[in-house]
Amino acid sequence: MPEIKEKLMANKPLILITNDDGYEADGYRLLVDLMKTLGDVVAISTLESTSAMGHAVTMNLPLRLNKIKDEPGFIEYISNGTPADNIKMGKHLLLDRLPDLVVSGINHGSNAAINIIYSGTMAAALEAAMDGIPAIGFSLAEYGQHPDFSHVSEFVLKITKRVLNDSLPEGIALNVNIPKKTDAPVKGIKIARQAKATWKETYEERTDPFGRKYYWMSGVFLDGDKRVDTDEKAMADNYVAVVPVKFDFTASDLLDKLTF
Amino acid sequence: MPEIKEKLMANKPLILITNDDGYEADGYRLLVDLMKTLGDVVAISTLESTSAMGHAVTMNLPLRLNKIKDEPGFIEYISNGTPADNIKMGKHLLLDRLPDLVVSGINHGSNAAINIIYSGTMAAALEAAMDGIPAIGFSLAEYGQHPDFSHVSEFVLKITKRVLNDSLPEGIALNVNIPKKTDAPVKGIKIARQAKATWKETYEERTDPFGRKYYWMSGVFLDGDKRVDTDEKAMADNYVAVVPVKFDFTASDLLDKLTF
Repeated sequence: MPEIKEKLMANKPLILITNDDGYEADGYRLLVDLMKTLGDVVAISTLESTSAMGHAVTMNLPLRLNKIKDEPGFIEYISNGTPADNIKMGKHLLLDRLPDLVVSGINHGSNAAINIIYSGTMAAALEAAMDGIPAIGFSLAEYGQHPDFSHVSEFVLKITKRVLNDSLPEGIALNVNIPKKTDAPVKGIKIARQAKATWKETYEERTDPFGRKYYWMSGVFLDGDKRVDTDEKAMADNYVAVVPVKFDFTASDLLDKLTF
Repeated sequence: MPEIKEKLMANKPLILITNDDGYEADGYRLLVDLMKTLGDVVAISTLESTSAMGHAVTMNLPLRLNKIKDEPGFIEYISNGTPADNIKMGKHLLLDRLPDLVVSGINHGSNAAINIIYSGTMAAALEAAMDGIPAIGFSLAEYGQHPDFSHVSEFVLKITKRVLNDSLPEGIALNVNIPKKTDAPVKGIKIARQAKATWKETYEERTDPFGRKYYWMSGVFLDGDKRVDTDEKAMADNYVAVVPVKFDFTASDLLDKLTF
């Protein structure tokens, strides 16, 4: 076994952080700074953005880790892995004990509705939940390199402190989506369910300098879900949406209806 | 919009196929051959294995498609996309109508229990379910390049014919796992739920020829789930396990229990 187990102070909460926008992303740097006020922090991310990795893990390539910071109570790595890899390496390679909390994000862009299934941010949170570690994925519903995060810290701290104090049921992670900053203040936090809203993709055809065709995926987001308790509805009403999520895909209500 | 919409006969079921072991994989070739007996087939896979891609989609690279076969009732492509990309391209780029069925696999290795979350095979099936297309992911619980598929066809055909005839509830896909071939015949098909069984990873440290450290992920599979209706239990008892799955991650039972 490798011998790079990091020892951090045992009297503070140990918080493991990753994201999928790369280690320089504004949302990640903000999350790291906020978590440093709450505990000892180990942060692992990638050099560049790895958006839409879903729950991919790396089996065909060797994984590499570079320590870029080692301060009292704060250690930071860059890896070539996916967000799920980063949490796996944190749990099983880097830390001498399981973290008390895993947080992921703050993602540049919403992970509400079907976006959760494509989300490396939420894959990381679910990867922690599998080992019974309380986990939260934070996302801001604004894309781009430098979204306005000025309204975000208050909610990230409130939700994280609550989870550190009260924990979460075994196997559960929180998918937290914060609405884009507007002139109106965010109204509060709503517990919500994943909206049935999905993407309809389009493909743009181009020709490369060698005469070969290639395609860029694009798409429009279609929300036809009329229920009033969805994450999309909460955000449309300017609330932070908190969806408790699990990694069991079973459609339990069908178990006694299907036969072969 | 690109103009490569394939027209196939409208009087036969239109079946879209992908996998995550590459287009030459034994399981994929068998699935293609079996589906050709049931309908018109469009098959899209990758050149090589893309195992453990989860629900990754390609946003940072241009997508490429190469048609390698165009026969009456059968068209085959190779792409550089993930299994989820392949279904998206099938739905929105290649076909002039939604397929009647999407099948994925036959995966070399189990996608029961937590494996579903890492599985490109099942991501492809869920990608179809999002558009209301009945979808099935097939997996054989034997790894390796040339597993014994001799007991598989009967169950693949039985389950596929049933789904073609009766369809599936909107948004549902089937995760079908077939036990490894033994001397005893498979006992039948059981409807099951996803077992709470996960991987505990280990990392092997190596040093490259340039003196730099790298890591290979490995792991052991831990099944502590004692329930009798799980997919792992069904396969241990030599049944084909069929889990109806959905793409809603909400832990609905917690919606009225959490507050902030």
